[in-house]
Amino acid sequence: MTELKLEKCKIAVDAMGGDYAPKHEILGAIAAMKENKNFDLILVGDKEKILKVARQEKIELDENVIYHASQVIEMGDKPIDSIKSKPDSSLVVGAKLVRDKKAHAFVSAGNTGAVAAVSTLIIGRIKNVERPTIGSFIPSETNDTYLFDVGAFVDVKPQHLLEYAILASIFVKELHGIKSPSVALLNVGEEEEKGNKQVKETAELLRKSDLNFIGNIEGRDILKGKSNIVICDGFVGNIILKFGESVPSFMKYLLKQHAEKNIFEKIKIGLFKNTLKKALSPLNPDLYGGVPLLGVNGISIIGHGSSSPLAIKNMILRAKEMYDKNLIKKFEEALKTYAIKK
Amino acid sequence: MTELKLEKCKIAVDAMGGDYAPKHEILGAIAAMKENKNFDLILVGDKEKILKVARQEKIELDENVIYHASQVIEMGDKPIDSIKSKPDSSLVVGAKLVRDKKAHAFVSAGNTGAVAAVSTLIIGRIKNVERPTIGSFIPSETNDTYLFDVGAFVDVKPQHLLEYAILASIFVKELHGIKSPSVALLNVGEEEEKGNKQVKETAELLRKSDLNFIGNIEGRDILKGKSNIVICDGFVGNIILKFGESVPSFMKYLLKQHAEKNIFEKIKIGLFKNTLKKALSPLNPDLYGGVPLLGVNGISIIGHGSSSPLAIKNMILRAKEMYDKNLIKKFEEALKTYAIKK
Repeated sequence: MTELKLEKCKIAVDAMGGDYAPKHEILGAIAAMKENKNFDLILVGDKEKILKVARQEKIELDENVIYHASQVIEMGDKPIDSIKSKPDSSLVVGAKLVRDKKAHAFVSAGNTGAVAAVSTLIIGRIKNVERPTIGSFIPSETNDTYLFDVGAFVDVKPQHLLEYAILASIFVKELHGIKSPSVALLNVGEEEEKGNKQVKETAELLRKSDLNFIGNIEGRDILKGKSNIVICDGFVGNIILKFGESVPSFMKYLLKQHAEKNIFEKIKIGLFKNTLKKALSPLNPDLYGGVPLLGVNGISIIGHGSSSPLAIKNMILRAKEMYDKNLIKKFEEALKTYAIKK
Repeated sequence: MTELKLEKCKIAVDAMGGDYAPKHEILGAIAAMKENKNFDLILVGDKEKILKVARQEKIELDENVIYHASQVIEMGDKPIDSIKSKPDSSLVVGAKLVRDKKAHAFVSAGNTGAVAAVSTLIIGRIKNVERPTIGSFIPSETNDTYLFDVGAFVDVKPQHLLEYAILASIFVKELHGIKSPSVALLNVGEEEEKGNKQVKETAELLRKSDLNFIGNIEGRDILKGKSNIVICDGFVGNIILKFGESVPSFMKYLLKQHAEKNIFEKIKIGLFKNTLKKALSPLNPDLYGGVPLLGVNGISIIGHGSSSPLAIKNMILRAKEMYDKNLIKKFEEALKTYAIKK
């Protein structure tokens, strides 16, 4: 990847990925270009649809940035099959642009599982990575907590969890400027003897590594920000992440229920609404620019299906940052050292 | 157990279990007796300490309700070892009272793992139960959601998860008056092909059972109350439960952070504090009277270490309800039918 640094960074955006595609994708991409002119945009998707929506939304869009792809992968499509059955889908075409070095990064708000699987298969893995991983920023009291893995693969081995920790450590170090990010293992107790076979074996590997492993933490420690990186398998991580995302709407429900009990309380809640919204704004996932897929041989960022233009913009800027910091090269180097050790 | 119904229900309370023992235990027990006179209390623990605290708190306590036990199991003690090393601990003595039919129920705010392990070993399991389970009430939009298992055992088999679902279905049916409680499997997606090996095999077993199995649900569906019973292994359940319990303090943190930004916002938050507290009161775990340990051959309820007197009171009343509804007998019957089928 390094030789590509001589050229301008090229970021391919899956224009057909999200629930509001291509509108949010176009708006987000335009916003990203306004904030950072130092990259070339490639909007991958149905040219006619993209241009139509741009006209409707009165967005000035240079049609040369569009890379036509006629098909769209739907929620019901089986990810891996779609490589063969929908070779001209925006997802497959976008991933191929990265594979063929025509783009340095790929950003998609499509089905997470599909983007992860297709990116892994088409772009390929970095040497010494067996399982790529998706990590998510988690709002916490320290504001620098990431949960890895949140759903790339279930049924993983301790060795894979170690790989996640290595990739995540570099990601957090480079993108958050934390010299030696702390790594903790999510468990049912802090003591070494707690937990299932998988975490016990993983703890062994982490202790032997040169990562800043601080031991086990519990579910209640995540939001406290006790560790920069929280390691768990994709099954646990995905459930925690989705549970966490459902909390604000449950709070809203509880406030609504309470408001119905008493007109004075209703008025108070009405008056307080805006303050509460502002106070809880750190919970807005759109701020964090999607979740990075680490371990594939190119930059890949995956967004929520419901990504707003703000989310798309932040995903693109995050991809640009990963490019600028030369992360893929750094992953490769770290895993090389690690491979010699094992 | 049924023949015991001729006598008055006897509930043994571990007076030395919680972080504020024996004070909260005494206060909670007295409050329970005020609310329901129809049971006999047995306070298990250090007689002198209990009487001393009762005097300090100016509580009138009949010393005949105290069943002396000289030892206390601490957080650092290994649960199973303590049966031998601390045979006269309040936990071991309390469990033995149930085993020996001198009490119908045992209530403890001691270390969850210790109470579960010691109860299981001493009281024994109901026939056809391989793994007892701890379930927790989860506040949700429907207000009748339970998560099973939340930490009794990690490394479980699909067969155990089926047992949890059978026990939980009877518990929720009898205690919440829901005729056919819905059972869902916690997973990373709703589709049948989603998830790890364990959930796929468990789904198979649940589909074949005569439980009201509604399929997979995701992390975001728990607080929505999409299912009365949410089944997962103790590893996942424990992490979700503790994560959920940490949410209110994180909200408080976010409000405090926001208040510091601006004096007007600070005043607004101050004025709204009480309303918010009331609106979020359904999140108070003390309301739900601990978590039942199901599958042991007697009633066993486990509370938070930090249980308030209100929590202890509700745990005792919940134990009384389980006795009145003859739950152990009903578990036995259900598992008999089920055992013939398999």
